[in-house]
Amino acid sequence: MSDIRKDPIVGRWVIVAENRAARPQDFEHAERKANGRDCPFCEGHEHHTPREIVAVREPNSMANRTGWRVRVVPNMFPALESDGELGRQSDGLYDMMHGVGAHEVIIESPRHISSTSELSEAELTEVLCIYRDRLIELKKDHRLAYGMLFKNVGPGAGASLEHIHSQLIATPIVPINVWEEMTGSLEFYNYRGKCIYCDIIRREIESKKRIVFETSEFVALCPFASRFAFETWILPKTHCSRYEKIDSAAASELSGVLKGVIESLEKILEGPAYNYIIHTAPFDTDEVGHYHWHIEIMPRINKAAGFEWGTGFYINPVPPEAAAGALRGT
Amino acid sequence: MSDIRKDPIVGRWVIVAENRAARPQDFEHAERKANGRDCPFCEGHEHHTPREIVAVREPNSMANRTGWRVRVVPNMFPALESDGELGRQSDGLYDMMHGVGAHEVIIESPRHISSTSELSEAELTEVLCIYRDRLIELKKDHRLAYGMLFKNVGPGAGASLEHIHSQLIATPIVPINVWEEMTGSLEFYNYRGKCIYCDIIRREIESKKRIVFETSEFVALCPFASRFAFETWILPKTHCSRYEKIDSAAASELSGVLKGVIESLEKILEGPAYNYIIHTAPFDTDEVGHYHWHIEIMPRINKAAGFEWGTGFYINPVPPEAAAGALRGT
Repeated sequence: MSDIRKDPIVGRWVIVAENRAARPQDFEHAERKANGRDCPFCEGHEHHTPREIVAVREPNSMANRTGWRVRVVPNMFPALESDGELGRQSDGLYDMMHGVGAHEVIIESPRHISSTSELSEAELTEVLCIYRDRLIELKKDHRLAYGMLFKNVGPGAGASLEHIHSQLIATPIVPINVWEEMTGSLEFYNYRGKCIYCDIIRREIESKKRIVFETSEFVALCPFASRFAFETWILPKTHCSRYEKIDSAAASELSGVLKGVIESLEKILEGPAYNYIIHTAPFDTDEVGHYHWHIEIMPRINKAAGFEWGTGFYINPVPPEAAAGALRGT
Repeated sequence: MSDIRKDPIVGRWVIVAENRAARPQDFEHAERKANGRDCPFCEGHEHHTPREIVAVREPNSMANRTGWRVRVVPNMFPALESDGELGRQSDGLYDMMHGVGAHEVIIESPRHISSTSELSEAELTEVLCIYRDRLIELKKDHRLAYGMLFKNVGPGAGASLEHIHSQLIATPIVPINVWEEMTGSLEFYNYRGKCIYCDIIRREIESKKRIVFETSEFVALCPFASRFAFETWILPKTHCSRYEKIDSAAASELSGVLKGVIESLEKILEGPAYNYIIHTAPFDTDEVGHYHWHIEIMPRINKAAGFEWGTGFYINPVPPEAAAGALRGT
């Protein structure tokens, strides 16, 4: 089992997971890319993954057989494992605990495709609903504090398999970046009496210059302090702290926005590697006035180097106003 | 000129520098790698860089001509520029300022080599002394708050040119990661009355299991909560907050340790991309009891992906105890 260790100086957490070194690397095997041969996520290869946790299936199809549209399985090389107790321990300066949590893979299509833009809106809606359902389920486990849903597309974004999938890692600690968003937005709320994300949305819709798309319930924009070139966020216009409250109608609308943004990014950047991450409130947080769930989409065309690692300062070569203008123009 | 923007939620700063998009990419031109043809950093090509700021030269050699051993020049595509005032401004939610600062390149050898392991200890000592001298010089500029010295080796670590060099970016803001180290170590100091880094050094030397090398004045170790596989830190054993206080004898000893660590990493990992970063106190900090300068060396063999960007949690597949054991064994 992995362990979770805390840096005693800055409080950053690290998962030390030896088994992760052994996982397969599609991108080192060019022949696999062409046709999905040997791909453990393709339909008909269900026996190559651990047994499914849940799936969206045709009526009368059987678990771990063909006939599914979205399939959730445990990660074969999990960073965190679901069995056991946390066993928090301290050894002088150092705090650590067992690597307890969940690490699931959401296989988003039986077809060997790789990008969200290749899903239909109906297919993507089912994926977005499965995200919600998994968060609701994992929240019931009181050892867990947070569920992070994310997607890596392309080797430049850290993907190790090509077949379209996203991941959910549920951690026994609220991650530091989430904590910073929670405390930063709470500070604003206490001082100004309103949600900073709602304020950003209102202001950006007024000025228009960083808006990419807008629908009745969602807005896609390039944030004022974008870390990455063409970084784009999607936010619900109506205040809501928790992604898992999304209903099917909103998921359907969101699928159009998410697919649209990724299609535009791919058109302009010629199929970039990218990540997206769902930012939502920690499990023990009820609906709160200060936090606003959203999706951050990060094309990985400029590489973080020594300066970024050392400082937490980012250098972005494309002003978000120019990025939004280009994305709107597609 | 670039601008520096603050994320209104988490307080992260971003440099938006359009000119950086235009910089050359050695690694897209394989033929350049073989022989340094067209390399702007090779001896004899001094006219391909901006005019030098300072250099270590043979007696009687002329500035911007041959005859140098280490040469410091302004970055041709600077993230920050030295002219002008900060012009801090706010626009509602958003804070920004002009991209004032310094962005220098330290060319570490006239020869077309790429890794620190290819320098002699005497050459590396001169580089380490130039680092010190540039910090002392830039500190005199009261618009500047911090000087970050870092090195990117290999495209996987964000290098855009192959010829051995490091960079110094001086910023008008103390970077958030440095701030976190300063406040984290101060909190420990206030509570326990001692430097947390000194405590870590003492403890690690006692237990030995994460120690890589030790000399009379320095220790190299794999930190307890290593973010990256084979991450290694070098710390002076005697408490000191500021790198720029290093003297020539200590720089000479440090050169042996730094070169030794990188040689070991390259032997085990077969020439990995890597970054190193000098962590030192902000310009306005005098010698303080709680902060301890050090160098962090990060091989870039495991890639940060969506999970790391989203959470600030890192997944490291190699326990630091195993990494230190392997590095000691070389």
